[in-house]
Parts: sequence; C-alpha cells; structure tokens
Amino acid sequence: MNAPTGRLGGELTLPYPYLLFLGGTTEASYAKTAFGLADWASDRCTGEWGIEGCSVSTGLPRLSPAEARAAGARAMVIGVANQGGVIDQAWIPALVEAMDAGLDIVSGLHAKLTSAPALVEAARRTGQRLIDIRTPPPAIPTGTGRKRTGQRVLTVGTDCALGKKYTALALHRALVARGVDADFRATGQTGIMIAGGGMPMDAVISDFEAGAAEMLSPDAAQDHWDVIEGQGSIFNPAYAPVSLGLLHGSQPDVFVVCHDPTRTAILGMENFMLPSVEEVIDLTIRLGRLTNPAIRCGGVSLNTFAFAPEKAEELMAFERERLRLPVADPVRGGAAFDALVENILA
Amino acid sequence: MNAPTGRLGGELTLPYPYLLFLGGTTEASYAKTAFGLADWASDRCTGEWGIEGCSVSTGLPRLSPAEARAAGARAMVIGVANQGGVIDQAWIPALVEAMDAGLDIVSGLHAKLTSAPALVEAARRTGQRLIDIRTPPPAIPTGTGRKRTGQRVLTVGTDCALGKKYTALALHRALVARGVDADFRATGQTGIMIAGGGMPMDAVISDFEAGAAEMLSPDAAQDHWDVIEGQGSIFNPAYAPVSLGLLHGSQPDVFVVCHDPTRTAILGMENFMLPSVEEVIDLTIRLGRLTNPAIRCGGVSLNTFAFAPEKAEELMAFERERLRLPVADPVRGGAAFDALVENILA
Repeated sequence: MNAPTGRLGGELTLPYPYLLFLGGTTEASYAKTAFGLADWASDRCTGEWGIEGCSVSTGLPRLSPAEARAAGARAMVIGVANQGGVIDQAWIPALVEAMDAGLDIVSGLHAKLTSAPALVEAARRTGQRLIDIRTPPPAIPTGTGRKRTGQRVLTVGTDCALGKKYTALALHRALVARGVDADFRATGQTGIMIAGGGMPMDAVISDFEAGAAEMLSPDAAQDHWDVIEGQGSIFNPAYAPVSLGLLHGSQPDVFVVCHDPTRTAILGMENFMLPSVEEVIDLTIRLGRLTNPAIRCGGVSLNTFAFAPEKAEELMAFERERLRLPVADPVRGGAAFDALVENILA
Repeated sequence: MNAPTGRLGGELTLPYPYLLFLGGTTEASYAKTAFGLADWASDRCTGEWGIEGCSVSTGLPRLSPAEARAAGARAMVIGVANQGGVIDQAWIPALVEAMDAGLDIVSGLHAKLTSAPALVEAARRTGQRLIDIRTPPPAIPTGTGRKRTGQRVLTVGTDCALGKKYTALALHRALVARGVDADFRATGQTGIMIAGGGMPMDAVISDFEAGAAEMLSPDAAQDHWDVIEGQGSIFNPAYAPVSLGLLHGSQPDVFVVCHDPTRTAILGMENFMLPSVEEVIDLTIRLGRLTNPAIRCGGVSLNTFAFAPEKAEELMAFERERLRLPVADPVRGGAAFDALVENILA
C-alpha cells in the first residue's frame, strides 16, 4: 500500500527502496522499525538482512547487500533498536559491507552513524551516505499550552513497543477511508521513515519537549484530525518525560490506550509491573487535562498477536465489558475496530 | 559564606570573581541566576551590571566591566534568563564591552554563546573565552529505575522560579550544620555555578532525562543525604517533562513543595492557574512512587518575601494547620525551618 504522508518534514527525503537491517536481534519488540516499514511502506522495501544470531523476520526476502543492490535497493535501513539506541559494534562489518555494495545507510538511532569512525571511513572510501534521521529541526520553541484549532487523537500505552505507532497508522488509514481530512503525525524513527516527516520526540532536549509536540500538530481546520503517534509510557521509569511532553504538547481531544495482554512487566525492567489499562486511562486524563480539559479515552487497542482468533475475540469482549469502552485490535480490524474509530469521532 | 561543593562535575572550573550581568530585566523572577549567586556564592561575586531599562538589583555594587575588572573580576556571568533561554540581541554590546574590558563570558542559557557571531568575533579579537556551562556530560545512560542506596530529598514546586534552588541550598546547609553527611545536587545553571558541578537537567535529551537524574545522585552510604535541586513543575505546560524525569530519576524518599502564595498563575502563562500545594503533593506522590513507593512529603517551603514578618508567620501557621505538615520559609529560618528539617530526617 502507499505510505501515508505528513505535511511536516518535507525537507527530509530518504533514498529507497530499502534493505531492512535486523542486526542480531532475537526479540521482535526490538525490531519494530523493520516491522513497521515492512507493514506500512512495503512498496519501499526490497528485503531484509541480519547478522549471525538474528532469529526474527519481517517476512520479506532475505537478501545480502549485493543481492539487494542488484534488486534496486538504494539504502540499508537500521531496522532494529536497543536500549539506549547505540550502534552495536557487531553491526559494523555488515554496515561496511552494505556501503561496499553501493547502499547508503539510514539510521534512526540516538547514536549518530557519523560517531563511528569505521563507518565514516567506509563512507569516505565508497562515497555512500550516512543518514541520521533522528535530528530534531532547529529552533524548537518552549511550549505555551495555547489551545490550537482542529481535532487530535494520540495513542498512548501501558509500555513501549506494543502497538502505538501501528494503531495510529491504522486509525489514520480508517479516518481517510471515511473521508475525514486527517494527517498521521510521526514521532519516532520508523514513523518518520514511513511518513517522510515528523518530530523525533525522544531526541528533543527536555526543555523543548512539549514545544516540539506543539509544533508537530499545528492549528488546523476545525474538522481536521491529527492522528499522533505516541511514545513510551508515563509509567516507564526511563521514558516517561518523552510521553508527558508529547501528551501536554499534543493536547489530545481523544486518546487510545495500546496494550499487550501478554506483557506483565515493563520491557527490559523485570522489577516494574506493567500498569493496568485503567491506571493508564486515569493518569493520562489527570495529566492531559492540563492542556485540554476535555480530554477523553476513545477506547483500547489490544495487541492480540499471540492469540488465536477465537481467543482474541473472547479477550476483547471481556475487556470491552470490563472497561465499558470500545476495544479492538487494529491488525484484526472488523466491526470492533470500526466501533473504536466511531467512538473517536463521536 | 562558602559555596557548597558537589562531588560531581569536578572537571568544570569557572573563572571568578564574577560580575553579574542583569540585562534589561524588570522582573526579579527572571534574574534568579544573579540572585542565587549573590546569595550563595557572594565571595565569588564582585558586583552587578545591567543595560538600559534594568530595574532589578542583587544588592551588590553596580560596576561597569572596566571597574569590575579593576576590582579583580575575571568573568561576566549572564545572570538573567528568559523564556527559551536565548541570547537577547540587546545584550550583545554589553557582552562585547565586557570582553573588551578583559572578562570572559559565562552563560547557562540554552542558546550557546558561540552561536552569536558578534560574540565569537569579539572573543577572537580579545582572546577572552565564551563558556557555556549548560552542556550535559557525554554518554548519559537511559534510566533503569534501579533503587539506589542512601537518602534523597528533592525540592518540587507549584511553578518555576519560586524557591526550589534556594530551599535545597538552605536544607543542605541545615543538614551539614546538624552533622549530617549531605551533598547539594545542582540541576540548573545557577546551582551548577554555585556548586561547581551537577547536571543541567533541562539541557538533557528527553530520552535520557531520567537517566541523567539517576547519574546525578549515585549510590551512597545509607545515612548520606542528597539534597536535589528541583526544576520546573509537573503542572507547567512547557517544563513538566524536565520535572518528571528529575522526579523519577531522583527517586526521592522525601520531597518539599516550594510555593509562592502571591502567585496565582503560572509564570508567563496567564491562562494557567497555579496548582494548589495539595494538588502538587498528591500528584508528586502518585508519579514519584513509580521509582520509590515510600516517597513522602516532608513539608512546604513558603516564599513569604512579599510579606511583613507578622503576616508571614500568620500565613505559615495557617498553612501548617490546613496541611498538617511543617511549613517554613528558609529565608526566615527559625524554629519553623528546624521543624521542617527534622521532619525530613524523621
């Protein structure tokens, strides 16, 4: 399908088709960039590649850099993230091989590609480019809290990496299909790669975090919807500042809570229990009403990937009854997802 | 009095005595850097200076850069902050004049001195230095939420610029006077100038905000106290992400709410009502218990600067009764402040 496009970030144009690089990843949660690109911008992706030990797959063909180049690829995208967003030393030979094969390297990691001398040297030698997309625009103002025109829906979550971007993309697609004037507002590396623009919220300096979110979804027509990709979780001991700045600056009219029922602890922090959906709803309203007193929960996006269809339906029905809110899995779609979309627009 | 020293940030050594630069400030809240230095590091300050329109004073002698240089000053410190932390174009002639007089320029603003071509040119011409202290250390890790050893008290507030740094400095002084092993942990430009080290929390990239606060107050002996300078407010639509990262990463055992009873709206945002002290206590406990379930409010630091002594006493007594917590003004000290300190240590 065609990738959605945002109105911001037009200056960023990436070379594609992409070869998706998975590193040595063994846990799908850490490869969300690759999965997101395969799902939402598959027409820009030629294949995937990994190093020894890699046990996840997006389903795209496994191609070496040379094979991908021969198939038309122009860049290898680092499709895997790790705690801290650093460049794993084990990736270096693969990245150099890709440049030798004629591919640029595109990265959304915190650590800049240009901070790795071996990559800089290979780029100089091969003439290929090192493209770091996680660089915020200059001159972001501090937040003002001023209420902007237009409608906004933000995806929030019980944790990182459980469907906030996917849910926002699916909601955007559903709104457009209903004839609603809507924009997908990307806030993370994958979303920005898919949309071709946005705001890398977790790379923004803290003092400007809310202001960056205000910039991302400017004043719009009263019936226009911005569908804003959430980041992190207000219950995550590492990333809550990102989530709070995005919440305050987005001043959403509606939010959707994204949740993975199989997850019991915060990703990578076994001592932190996952908050309940109710806790997330309650605290999001409490914090969000600072900049939008009318904030409300539009429903729950349940990641039922791990369940068979009947079990997933059962789980969603149970949650729907318990929370008295629309509950849907955007991957499964159907009437449940329609009900969620309708409740957002209500 | 002697300035407190922290254990961190030893690599940062600033040239002093300072001449404090007040710009054209007419509102004392925006000159908190100058006031803080005059109050807590007066032995490092020679005098103050401003441009036309400046109507605030720290009480130090008004000296031109040439007079200050003759009196021994080695640097002019920008002692004024504005929304966004930019370099006001109206300051440039004064900053150049200071360099011509033989002073280095020290700044804690977000905008780097080196971003102003006129200053770079003057520095080149005069040989004086442009020193930006608001540069976080490299390689800050993301937060882990791991509980650290030692005791921590954090000052929080109903808003910015109403006494969080002052309260932390006074608490640190009081703890040391009681023989408690304690460190003042600076988080803003003035605190860092006073302490000679710390973490410029509002200049840290959002994804690392909680991790930076974890770095600032490392594991310590079980009876050691870190007195951590608060930043912003969780109710400020611009700066809440800074406050939340500091709260989560500091994992305070105790917090003190700083409040100015004359303030009714958030500074610079007339449409945002100041939260009540109770709201701040309640939300701080709710958010803070994520990383320290034992978090408690130690009391209230009331900024009674605007009141006569009897009125201030009356106000504190009223609040003490209403909140059932120690309430004191650290500037006034006395038995009320002793009670606050005792309740923190309790």
